[in-house]
Amino acid sequence: MAHHPRSFGRINDIDTLEFVREITSGNRSALSRAITLIESSRPDHQKKAHEILDHCLQHRTSSLRIGITGPPGVGKSTLIESLGLEILNNPDNRLAVLTIDPSSQQSGGSILGDKARMEQLSGKKEVYIRPSPSSGHLGGTSPKTHEVIMLAEAAGFNIIIVETVGVGQSEITIESMVDYILLLLLPGSGDELQGIKRGIMEIADSVAITKSDEADRAIMVRSESSCQAAIRLLPKKYSCWTPEVILSSAVTGQGIEEIWKNIQDFTTVLTAKGLFEQHRKKQLNKLFTALVDEQLRIAFYDHPEIEFSLQELAAKVEKNLISPFSGAQLLVKKFLSPPIQ
Amino acid sequence: MAHHPRSFGRINDIDTLEFVREITSGNRSALSRAITLIESSRPDHQKKAHEILDHCLQHRTSSLRIGITGPPGVGKSTLIESLGLEILNNPDNRLAVLTIDPSSQQSGGSILGDKARMEQLSGKKEVYIRPSPSSGHLGGTSPKTHEVIMLAEAAGFNIIIVETVGVGQSEITIESMVDYILLLLLPGSGDELQGIKRGIMEIADSVAITKSDEADRAIMVRSESSCQAAIRLLPKKYSCWTPEVILSSAVTGQGIEEIWKNIQDFTTVLTAKGLFEQHRKKQLNKLFTALVDEQLRIAFYDHPEIEFSLQELAAKVEKNLISPFSGAQLLVKKFLSPPIQ
Repeated sequence: MAHHPRSFGRINDIDTLEFVREITSGNRSALSRAITLIESSRPDHQKKAHEILDHCLQHRTSSLRIGITGPPGVGKSTLIESLGLEILNNPDNRLAVLTIDPSSQQSGGSILGDKARMEQLSGKKEVYIRPSPSSGHLGGTSPKTHEVIMLAEAAGFNIIIVETVGVGQSEITIESMVDYILLLLLPGSGDELQGIKRGIMEIADSVAITKSDEADRAIMVRSESSCQAAIRLLPKKYSCWTPEVILSSAVTGQGIEEIWKNIQDFTTVLTAKGLFEQHRKKQLNKLFTALVDEQLRIAFYDHPEIEFSLQELAAKVEKNLISPFSGAQLLVKKFLSPPIQ
Repeated sequence: MAHHPRSFGRINDIDTLEFVREITSGNRSALSRAITLIESSRPDHQKKAHEILDHCLQHRTSSLRIGITGPPGVGKSTLIESLGLEILNNPDNRLAVLTIDPSSQQSGGSILGDKARMEQLSGKKEVYIRPSPSSGHLGGTSPKTHEVIMLAEAAGFNIIIVETVGVGQSEITIESMVDYILLLLLPGSGDELQGIKRGIMEIADSVAITKSDEADRAIMVRSESSCQAAIRLLPKKYSCWTPEVILSSAVTGQGIEEIWKNIQDFTTVLTAKGLFEQHRKKQLNKLFTALVDEQLRIAFYDHPEIEFSLQELAAKVEKNLISPFSGAQLLVKKFLSPPIQ
């Protein structure tokens, strides 16, 4: 229950439609409050949040969702700052940056931290920056970022950047919610790619090698070619798209225009084949199925009798007094047919 | 419903305790009938099967469960035949070979095929060979092999070999049910290891390169050293055990004794550290949890109202008429509070 940064004492007094009007007319504080409701684990907050979200769905802008991932220290924030400024060269663009920070659950959010790291972006009225805690009700990665993306789109942000640390399972989650994934790698880390980074290389739509200003030319070239070799080895995500490897520096600006052009080319190519929309639909359907499973598990594990019975049966299974199969059946039966009062 | 190879018309007439006595006293036909019940998807068969299994649990022998995996064509059956004969040099050993054949669901089982492929083993009274269909109720890999292992152990088989084709997710399943995993690789395939086979390399407790009689000496040596390099790169499964790379040939017999010695060494080392038993307990607990989830999902998706509502809500989600979050909540609510009659 780490994430109640604001108070919603009179939650039922909030007029949902009024709230939705505020969000969709660009009231940032209303957007922030809605996101806080989404992230809350209190059932009344959740209920109100979903009412708001349901109404917001009618107001979503056509958007582009960009995932930026890579190991800690690769320079995600500085690259996002440069890329964001590049994106804002088009005055029609409004940019939301959502950061999934695995540590933010402990620290209670790192809003100031993220804003400080993206100094130039955070001052702009066309930009909204928001950290998103990475843990959901049942632990592990959370689908809440997906909900936050939808709210930001309803608030008129047409370019959404989702930043995530590429550790553990988080890159799998990002794949389920963005249109395009840019993998950032440090120069010289290319050699280990074939052995270690396979999972994340496979989901990347392009790769940027960062900090080209700091590294030796020879190292950059070797990193580039070993990345390209890895890409050739891996199965293609789309037959019509081959990931590019881009050398970049947030300091000198090298590669930043090229990255933005790559993202736009990607969108054009996939849209022409109908794959952009198809990918979105697949994501939405997967999300729905995953949420059905999650809701089912929540209902189950929150059931008052289950916790006790689960422990009791797990102990019996461990002692071979009952098979795990019979134990599981007994437990689910108990859940579905509560004792007659 | 592909797997009803035998008839159990009078299933309720079967005396469970009598059946258990037959199995545990070594009646192979009773064992086979029990496995068929386990594999059946009919609820009455399942119910009887679990009654039998619960009673069999008291009779389980202390056993060693060996997983053999590798790509198609690597020579799993011939290696199992040679290894099996080696294992049977100890007259106390009784061997059950369970093959998980991804194709057996279509073909309705390949009992004759497997027995034919293991000609020398299949004639022996200390050996029981049984193919296991790979698909469960909800598709994907099935936990039923785990149940079959338990039945075979109750029938007095102390060495269980589980053979699986190393494609897709099947090696993940095998990890959850055996004590030791031997990965088989063809000579010359070592080079691609670092890029492609990471998932399966990580779970292998040792690696055997097969068909050493057919391959060039230089190729065998290169395969061996590139396997060893891959093992050094990967995180260790147990700090007290380093996988070995063994050159083998089922034709000349090279490496077969060494493999059996490796398996016994592994068992000795892990048992001394208490890790053998700990690993078993973890597997049992994971299996229980997975089965609870499965039973819950079966109860849910088999519910008469769910199928229709699921389609209806999925369509609304796709059209953005409702958020996936609200859709999931509505669906689960419908499941838990059936309409008042």
